[in-house]
Amino acid sequence: MPPSDRYIANTEFYVRYAETDAMGIVHHASYIIWLEESRSSYIRSRGYDYVEVERAGYFLSVVELKVRYRAPARYGDLIRVACWVESLASRAITFEYEVSHATTGALFVTGESRHIATNKAGQPTLIPENFRQYLTPG
Amino acid sequence: MPPSDRYIANTEFYVRYAETDAMGIVHHASYIIWLEESRSSYIRSRGYDYVEVERAGYFLSVVELKVRYRAPARYGDLIRVACWVESLASRAITFEYEVSHATTGALFVTGESRHIATNKAGQPTLIPENFRQYLTPG
Amino acid sequence: MPPSDRYIANTEFYVRYAETDAMGIVHHASYIIWLEESRSSYIRSRGYDYVEVERAGYFLSVVELKVRYRAPARYGDLIRVACWVESLASRAITFEYEVSHATTGALFVTGESRHIATNKAGQPTLIPENFRQYLTPG
Amino acid sequence: MPPSDRYIANTEFYVRYAETDAMGIVHHASYIIWLEESRSSYIRSRGYDYVEVERAGYFLSVVELKVRYRAPARYGDLIRVACWVESLASRAITFEYEVSHATTGALFVTGESRHIATNKAGQPTLIPENFRQYLTPG
Repeated sequence: MPPSDRYIANTEFYVRYAETDAMGIVHHASYIIWLEESRSSYIRSRGYDYVEVERAGYFLSVVELKVRYRAPARYGDLIRVACWVESLASRAITFEYEVSHATTGALFVTGESRHIATNKAGQPTLIPENFRQYLTPG
Repeated sequence: MPPSDRYIANTEFYVRYAETDAMGIVHHASYIIWLEESRSSYIRSRGYDYVEVERAGYFLSVVELKVRYRAPARYGDLIRVACWVESLASRAITFEYEVSHATTGALFVTGESRHIATNKAGQPTLIPENFRQYLTPG
Repeated sequence: MPPSDRYIANTEFYVRYAETDAMGIVHHASYIIWLEESRSSYIRSRGYDYVEVERAGYFLSVVELKVRYRAPARYGDLIRVACWVESLASRAITFEYEVSHATTGALFVTGESRHIATNKAGQPTLIPENFRQYLTPG
Repeated sequence: MPPSDRYIANTEFYVRYAETDAMGIVHHASYIIWLEESRSSYIRSRGYDYVEVERAGYFLSVVELKVRYRAPARYGDLIRVACWVESLASRAITFEYEVSHATTGALFVTGESRHIATNKAGQPTLIPENFRQYLTPG
């Protein structure tokens, strides 16, 4: 269950056929792309846009990813990804995720990703202050 | 412009970061996946579900694809895909598409895909009648 | 059959599991990525590297794509993509492709892609002379 | 460094353009697909084929994934993925991976994936004996 003391962004979409594989279920890499899209959606729902971050010359680079696959989603399922900030430091941020069926609530995947801020040269930097204000966990 | 004498299904979504490439724009294969998703959405908007087609043992297999790339979409753009049936025969169907920016209307891509109905063994077959009624062009 | 009067680059690789879909076969967008990789391989086999083109500030942008799907490839198949230059103009180039099974020779897909040279601003430009010499059809 | 007491399968390929993103580097989900392909390659190099496993009605389902991103790979880089079995149990197997530049040796990614054997109904099962013999770590 997403924690009750965090800002939670919920993103919903249908499973695309291209996201399935020959097992007849969603391919395990497709969820990684959904987690990323739920981060984009998180930032939009807080009133900002990750496009602006990159336009200013900064990136949030993924440095670590942990995913647990609990049950398989299938083509056409309406998916909900809950995304929240688990921790925010001066140079790093950790997001957590819960991927479930939007109507039945069945849990498919839980995950966590850690990111650091980098500049255009790929060097670690502080998370810019005007972006940071949209990333407070609560 | 989508034709005025056809049923048009419009599908909207944001460009995902994973759909971009090192040119800084949407990768040309990503649009192919959007066209497919717009077909899924077309069928849903007509009141059916492609899941049911496959459950009954039938597939719509892509046999031909033509895409013209007119301008590049970018991460975060809100995309609209207009999808309609260009022609419907007993064993084949052709969809056409227009991919544009949902708010500015700027045109990114136009395309066309031809499909045949197949059974589980991969053999060509008639488009099942109970599916066919949702595919009439007008 | 690839034409006998052209330089043909053959690229071989195994079908990856992620490239399949719930029909149990290779997803139709996966072939588009193979065609692109066969272009990269074509340029390498001619003694150049597309990395250098982009480093110099130029791109080959896809403007048109036509693909015919003749039979489905499956996970684990050893694929061969034959790629050649169909026509070369001052600002545009057309590649053609044949995707087949590397050991049985069974034909999966044929295709064609048209590209124009662009600069970093996305404006059409001449194909740079030092790149052009590696793209002569014969 | 891959451990010295394990069977190591090395798989090499070029970074495909489609695997990059707008940061100009390889997208973080692309590595997940490379890890999977290195498992396919591991099984082939041991003298078996994962195709046979599925033909017999069994699957190795991913249940957990951990990835650390250490430096970014780029389009055209020649990649080497080292893959080995970290642990093998009656119903589960853990693979480990090291993704590096095949010529410079620069390390890009390390990872680990845990899998369980399932049957066609998706139920956990023993790893079939005739497959198991190819998965012994040493």
